[in-house]
Amino acid sequence: MLIIPECEIADLMTREVAFDAVEKVFAAMASGDAYNFPVVREAIGHEDALYGFKGGFDRAGLTLGLKAGGYWPNNLEKRGLINHQSTVFLFDPDTGKPSAMVGGNLLTALRTAAASSVSIKHLARKDAKVIGMIGAGHQAAFQLRAALEQRVFEKVIGWNYHPEMLPNIEKVANDAGVAFGAVELNGMAEADVIISITSAFAPSLMADHVAPGTHVACMGTDTKGKQEVEAALLAKASVFTDEVAQSITIGEAQHAVAQGLIAESDVAQLGAVINGTNPGRISDDQITLFDGTGVGLQDLAVAASVVDLAVQKGIAIKVDF
Amino acid sequence: MLIIPECEIADLMTREVAFDAVEKVFAAMASGDAYNFPVVREAIGHEDALYGFKGGFDRAGLTLGLKAGGYWPNNLEKRGLINHQSTVFLFDPDTGKPSAMVGGNLLTALRTAAASSVSIKHLARKDAKVIGMIGAGHQAAFQLRAALEQRVFEKVIGWNYHPEMLPNIEKVANDAGVAFGAVELNGMAEADVIISITSAFAPSLMADHVAPGTHVACMGTDTKGKQEVEAALLAKASVFTDEVAQSITIGEAQHAVAQGLIAESDVAQLGAVINGTNPGRISDDQITLFDGTGVGLQDLAVAASVVDLAVQKGIAIKVDF
Repeated sequence: MLIIPECEIADLMTREVAFDAVEKVFAAMASGDAYNFPVVREAIGHEDALYGFKGGFDRAGLTLGLKAGGYWPNNLEKRGLINHQSTVFLFDPDTGKPSAMVGGNLLTALRTAAASSVSIKHLARKDAKVIGMIGAGHQAAFQLRAALEQRVFEKVIGWNYHPEMLPNIEKVANDAGVAFGAVELNGMAEADVIISITSAFAPSLMADHVAPGTHVACMGTDTKGKQEVEAALLAKASVFTDEVAQSITIGEAQHAVAQGLIAESDVAQLGAVINGTNPGRISDDQITLFDGTGVGLQDLAVAASVVDLAVQKGIAIKVDF
Repeated sequence: MLIIPECEIADLMTREVAFDAVEKVFAAMASGDAYNFPVVREAIGHEDALYGFKGGFDRAGLTLGLKAGGYWPNNLEKRGLINHQSTVFLFDPDTGKPSAMVGGNLLTALRTAAASSVSIKHLARKDAKVIGMIGAGHQAAFQLRAALEQRVFEKVIGWNYHPEMLPNIEKVANDAGVAFGAVELNGMAEADVIISITSAFAPSLMADHVAPGTHVACMGTDTKGKQEVEAALLAKASVFTDEVAQSITIGEAQHAVAQGLIAESDVAQLGAVINGTNPGRISDDQITLFDGTGVGLQDLAVAASVVDLAVQKGIAIKVDF
């Protein structure tokens, strides 16, 4: 039984490894080699916390386990701890014995950033030059940092409901040597790639803010009622997702499906594009949209990778269990 | 973050501590202070394994977490490991950080035995003298050992589909200084308390095998389709359970409810008897029946107790996480 504490993850894990792990597990999901279990998510009635489990099994990678944890909204103010707290537990699929326990906080940020990056690699135009960010919080910096590695971007444009937070992403752009400009939402028409990463319950990005040929990654909607983009945008776009069942119930596609603008069959797995069984983008005018809902298998995949790295570097704590 | 490996549990945990933990959490469930989360249970398509999570939160005991694991049917033959493998993970309900990881194999046996014992304490006649066992496998020994401490039993009678296994429970009886006799099923009419602990899919114990005044604890049925006792017995009995929702869907009561012999409202929580809000047994002629389905909160309760014991004895492994 190996333990990789949260404090070791930053030195061990790289964006490249997270990208490869997420790309591979999306492919395994689409080929039927990997599946997610039903998600448990409970408002426990203590500290206003949301707590639950996201589990899954990847037969190809032989990765079995769960991420447990959730959202403790008072952590930062009361205790100086981050509000999102999670831990990944891996099990040996041959025996059912626990094999590893891995800090899941930074990994969650990295795997979420990797998901939009994988979508950009496979769905954005090769000549994409301008990337637009809707949202400028903590996670937005992760998304942008990873996205900038996928194309030769020349400019980052950003919009946030609270404009005073835009320096968060401006810094990421500048660190990568890319110009940054704040825009109004209709200024997003300049973008070739747009990532939205907010926790909004009403759309910010409207269909007419998005130019033909753009790839949009909606990364913030993971709950019934949340919404980042106008439902009409999904009707205009080719829609892809990590997991169709989540996309149409708790993801961005929930609204377009509920309004009858698209059907479940209009939502394709990004993994199928990775596997080559779905053509993905077929024209330079097409709008592609990735609905990233977040699945347990992503967490297991990055945790399994970090265990390998920790073993290689002699950092994993071994416990007889 | 504390770790209590499986190998330490036998020396740390006692039947008394398990009993107290289970009695207390049944009471907390009935008073609304504790609740179980939806159960995840998956046939993962590898090694014929069943794997899943049973979680819950006890606001009174401030115990939050889950048991993860399942059933690996090839473990013993292929690897010399036991087939049931589980691990309990506890979390700090104030912060969402993991607080303990505890081996769950022996604990599962002890908490299941504690459940029928708690039912005997609160529902069997005080003058019960004869205890009957249906089933004589590994778990039956745990059930009997714990049950013998609840009344001054003078005799154990036993029946098993494979009679050659009866020495398993005869030994437990003899170790406690109590006489043992093998019986046919109709011989169970002599018993004042009956525990059934099998994995049968058809009833063994029929309604006319059970004398007035008997307390029956059905401990084996935890899945749709399993059945240990005739549905008509539940119609004759006052029925109690750990969790009503499980009792009527995957527990022994599923059949009597499906056949319209009893209604959901006929099934009471054992915790309500512990709390004094349900009178429990009200006559010496009444048949009482406990439908023990097994809930995650039992696992969390015994794990939390073992953590306390391990800390007291300096055995818990501390890991900075």
